[in-house]
Amino acid sequence: MSSAIDRLRRSFLGEKEADCAALVVSPENRFYLTGFPSSAGAVLVTAKNAYFLTDFRYAEAARRVVTGSEVVCIKRMNDTLRELMEKDGVRRVFVEYEKVSLRQAHDFEQAFSKAGVAVETGPSLDAALEALRTIKTPEEIQKLREAQKITDDAFTHILDYIRPGRTEREVALELEFFMRRQGAEGVSFEFIVVSGKNGSLCHGVPSDKVIEDGDFVTMDTGALLHGYHADMTRTVAVGHVSDEQRHAYDLVLKAQLAAIDFIRPGVVCGDVDKVARDILEAEYKGAFEHSLGHGVGVEIHEWPRFAAGSTTIAQPGMVVSVEPGIYLEGKFGLRIEDLIVVTEDGCEDITKSRKDLIIL
Amino acid sequence: MSSAIDRLRRSFLGEKEADCAALVVSPENRFYLTGFPSSAGAVLVTAKNAYFLTDFRYAEAARRVVTGSEVVCIKRMNDTLRELMEKDGVRRVFVEYEKVSLRQAHDFEQAFSKAGVAVETGPSLDAALEALRTIKTPEEIQKLREAQKITDDAFTHILDYIRPGRTEREVALELEFFMRRQGAEGVSFEFIVVSGKNGSLCHGVPSDKVIEDGDFVTMDTGALLHGYHADMTRTVAVGHVSDEQRHAYDLVLKAQLAAIDFIRPGVVCGDVDKVARDILEAEYKGAFEHSLGHGVGVEIHEWPRFAAGSTTIAQPGMVVSVEPGIYLEGKFGLRIEDLIVVTEDGCEDITKSRKDLIIL
Repeated sequence: MSSAIDRLRRSFLGEKEADCAALVVSPENRFYLTGFPSSAGAVLVTAKNAYFLTDFRYAEAARRVVTGSEVVCIKRMNDTLRELMEKDGVRRVFVEYEKVSLRQAHDFEQAFSKAGVAVETGPSLDAALEALRTIKTPEEIQKLREAQKITDDAFTHILDYIRPGRTEREVALELEFFMRRQGAEGVSFEFIVVSGKNGSLCHGVPSDKVIEDGDFVTMDTGALLHGYHADMTRTVAVGHVSDEQRHAYDLVLKAQLAAIDFIRPGVVCGDVDKVARDILEAEYKGAFEHSLGHGVGVEIHEWPRFAAGSTTIAQPGMVVSVEPGIYLEGKFGLRIEDLIVVTEDGCEDITKSRKDLIIL
Repeated sequence: MSSAIDRLRRSFLGEKEADCAALVVSPENRFYLTGFPSSAGAVLVTAKNAYFLTDFRYAEAARRVVTGSEVVCIKRMNDTLRELMEKDGVRRVFVEYEKVSLRQAHDFEQAFSKAGVAVETGPSLDAALEALRTIKTPEEIQKLREAQKITDDAFTHILDYIRPGRTEREVALELEFFMRRQGAEGVSFEFIVVSGKNGSLCHGVPSDKVIEDGDFVTMDTGALLHGYHADMTRTVAVGHVSDEQRHAYDLVLKAQLAAIDFIRPGVVCGDVDKVARDILEAEYKGAFEHSLGHGVGVEIHEWPRFAAGSTTIAQPGMVVSVEPGIYLEGKFGLRIEDLIVVTEDGCEDITKSRKDLIIL
């Protein structure tokens, strides 16, 4: 597999004049292109060369890790960028759109105009990076598997921890501490742990509410490992469940399994959402307001989306969450979320935690 | 004390025409203006009104907390913004500069031009927000005190935990878990815990290196509480210290105390840096490469900076770190960092952890 920088050069610079270059400054895209996390820096890709500019805090470590681009230790980034572009004969440099601020763009224009380099500020570089990042390499999928493994292990661990009297916040912390002890460098997002009536808040913050007998406990969690984000939701019951809880749980699981069964290369992402949504809406109208899923990778929310109206076509290498739920205000809520990888002839579910209804 | 929104209106819109408005979209500045954390939204301040726009996930909770602005639940943010500006007779809207992306600015221009509203994209709104945020209110200082209290307690706790055989990573996790258990909503940044020769990496990442007898252990940590960031560094010795370690420690402490003693309203921030730097450079030339300090608040790095060349004048209400260090490659490193509040006649050190040389 060629490097991410080579792929960007081919897909983005390939059809442009030899005096064009791409300049990537956002932390996510720098990490994607270099595999090296840093809080400051830039990647400059010209027709022939690639440079990773970073400061004295990171340069030594970067030289040990980064391949495919020359590591340049900077003092004043824009001056170094201008010099490198002059050396490589660059006359037009394309910058990111969603992740470059007005100030950065202004500073680039000021600094580079002295060298006769025009700054191109449209959405085209973002589109090229999005297209690359949407299709994960086998190495990226392996990193996501490993992040998901820690997440699965945390779920197994927490089943012994949850009991009436524990608070939502205690459960959230125990999940996080477990993942960190297992080597996660962080968590994918602030965990959602909601129980009982709080379960209808699909983005609820863990509170000091005590878990009680008869509660559903919904846990939306994920480990961050090697820069890649896992994402999983499980809902378990404590003590006993009502018939309505069981029925809703079975329906959400049915919707999720139907959507996963439907996913294969060539299907429209909006249709995946519809498969699950139709099943839920048939019995619980208006109880599932969010989208079915989102891509994950070097960010927790990326492309594609399993969302109403999405016309994206599923392709091998996409990694997407499938997370239907039912939220009944004043009663309870639940969600079941797995990560799937689109394969050559269907999809693979890389989430291994059981999802039959567990009553603790 | 008037609300942050009132202060922004007075300082920024006060001298402009009545048809001007300020639009704030960055999470930090939205939180600063409303006291309500959210991952999406906007604050629109017009000559007469203020609006906090957020989506269905946050609107209900925001209505309970936010005062000083009307909470508006949005579906399509830019459409709602345009309607509100039309209602209030806005013709020019100023947006942020450092934290608004090229894409956002483009979208604003497209959406608002239909209503004849011009988007002003210079640095002036940022400058007004920076000026406000640099001077903390008594309520903000109290939040920083509480965040620092948890950080101090974590240091006391970790003194019993550190011993030869523990790894840097174990110490970092124990510090973090302690703070989270005490109610911190998160940590201010990824903790730095470095020992022995690793200590010369001023931004080192905690590794699996085992702490050994004779090591300095430098811990740069801080709790995040109520949206405010604490920041403290302590260096402790394990087992015994060499004469050189003791000498370097005493010098760093001397430099820090001299800088703190120098701080009062009216001094130039660059001179505060110089007071500490001169003491360190006299004996260890080139061993202190970073700046002496930075403001903290709703972000971990804000204004002012105690940095060479800074012409900012210290004023009451500024909260700034004072963190001299000595980094000797291949040998050891150390840093001592407190947070100070500039007061009417000097400064107050809100960091309470002891800083005599501790040998565990």
